[in-house]
Amino acid sequence: MKKKNKKVNAAILIIGNEILSGRTQDKNIAFISKWLNENCGISVSEVRVVPDIENIIIKSVLELSKKNSYVFTTGGIGPTHDDITAKSISKALRIKYDYNPEAFQILENYYGKSYFNDGRKKMAKMPKGSKLIHNPSSAAPGFMIKNIISLPGVPSILNSMIDNSKKYLVKGLRIHSKTLNLFTVESNISKKLAQIQKKFKRHVDIGSYPFFRLGKIGVSIVSRSTSRLKLNTVQKDLIKLAKTKKIKILKI
Amino acid sequence: MKKKNKKVNAAILIIGNEILSGRTQDKNIAFISKWLNENCGISVSEVRVVPDIENIIIKSVLELSKKNSYVFTTGGIGPTHDDITAKSISKALRIKYDYNPEAFQILENYYGKSYFNDGRKKMAKMPKGSKLIHNPSSAAPGFMIKNIISLPGVPSILNSMIDNSKKYLVKGLRIHSKTLNLFTVESNISKKLAQIQKKFKRHVDIGSYPFFRLGKIGVSIVSRSTSRLKLNTVQKDLIKLAKTKKIKILKI
Repeated sequence: MKKKNKKVNAAILIIGNEILSGRTQDKNIAFISKWLNENCGISVSEVRVVPDIENIIIKSVLELSKKNSYVFTTGGIGPTHDDITAKSISKALRIKYDYNPEAFQILENYYGKSYFNDGRKKMAKMPKGSKLIHNPSSAAPGFMIKNIISLPGVPSILNSMIDNSKKYLVKGLRIHSKTLNLFTVESNISKKLAQIQKKFKRHVDIGSYPFFRLGKIGVSIVSRSTSRLKLNTVQKDLIKLAKTKKIKILKI
Repeated sequence: MKKKNKKVNAAILIIGNEILSGRTQDKNIAFISKWLNENCGISVSEVRVVPDIENIIIKSVLELSKKNSYVFTTGGIGPTHDDITAKSISKALRIKYDYNPEAFQILENYYGKSYFNDGRKKMAKMPKGSKLIHNPSSAAPGFMIKNIISLPGVPSILNSMIDNSKKYLVKGLRIHSKTLNLFTVESNISKKLAQIQKKFKRHVDIGSYPFFRLGKIGVSIVSRSTSRLKLNTVQKDLIKLAKTKKIKILKI
């Protein structure tokens, strides 16, 4: 992993009709976002879900790669007709879509020469000059070209290989978070909370999220910042707010 | 619900830092997509997840509302400082952000006059002229203004009220789907599958999704179309493909 940079952000582009139709519950957004923040200090600034349609993929990839340090795509790099991610990215970047010799070799070894059919060979095709992201689950590699990282859509496979993309990324500052769970309703604390957020406007983001646990209603106050010191100060203010309002804090 | 239209589509805009940070696993995309298709014949064409930042919400709402029949937003309509959806949509549409008299009354009745504080009152503020989407769980209504429908982010509350938006929507043609689960790998059938997709290019979308069940690898072939007749024909072709290749079909 390369040296630290101050602000590094990423977009996630989920490619797949199965997410848009509601057939498949996406799990990759939360996984990639957490992984990027915890391992690379990279914040996700935007996510898009798009169908398996070439011109939409091209447009989205170009827009997102321009606006963000990195774009992570998921889905559409398998052997079937609806897997058009690698070809679409090649077209978007006007780079030749061709067999990657290393990927070809990996897949030929994995399947064996006599079982290495056209569908399997297709998984070695990608934008010329791509760096490979090795796949310990099912051999077919992901790839990185310019600031675009392409991973498969199946969560278990994606999870097993994402660490292999780390060496290509510039590290940013990690965002730390603290959570305070209060047995109250949002509207009971919203005014005070807004004052605390205003006080720490430049350094800490405070979010408020209702929860329901064992029949009780509560609010999770989540503070996020690159500074642990500032986080601790905010946490103290929040605990003071709870005490003043006689709100029970949930210890977990 | 209004009369049938041929093609009706929608975008979903998920508003919330907690989804982008990976803290919260989104469940609204799959729920809304399924609900729209099954109840309204509306297909979701795009999803975006954006942070709680006013100018980003404004830009996204305007882009998506121009490109789609409807935009469903989730999140950011509660009482806290990070709930800025209603205000942002008002700004996007250049419509006054003001108390909705009916929403104000509902919330005042719900909380009681003496407990109806500023945070709670805020939940009655929305773009002037909005139609309300009633909330049987926690009173605070969603709203519809122009082609934008705003719902809360908490899945249980959203699920309980989405039916109340149905009367405002124009119905489209429902997309039906059929799934065939085959005990094979994608690369074994990708060539034949592409031929079948090509044959039914204009009427049926065929997707291929690997699955793992009880230690076995398989592929779900999902066909989607507004025509049940075409779907049945495709299904017959797929079963023929399985038989020719001696692939076991998983009965579920």
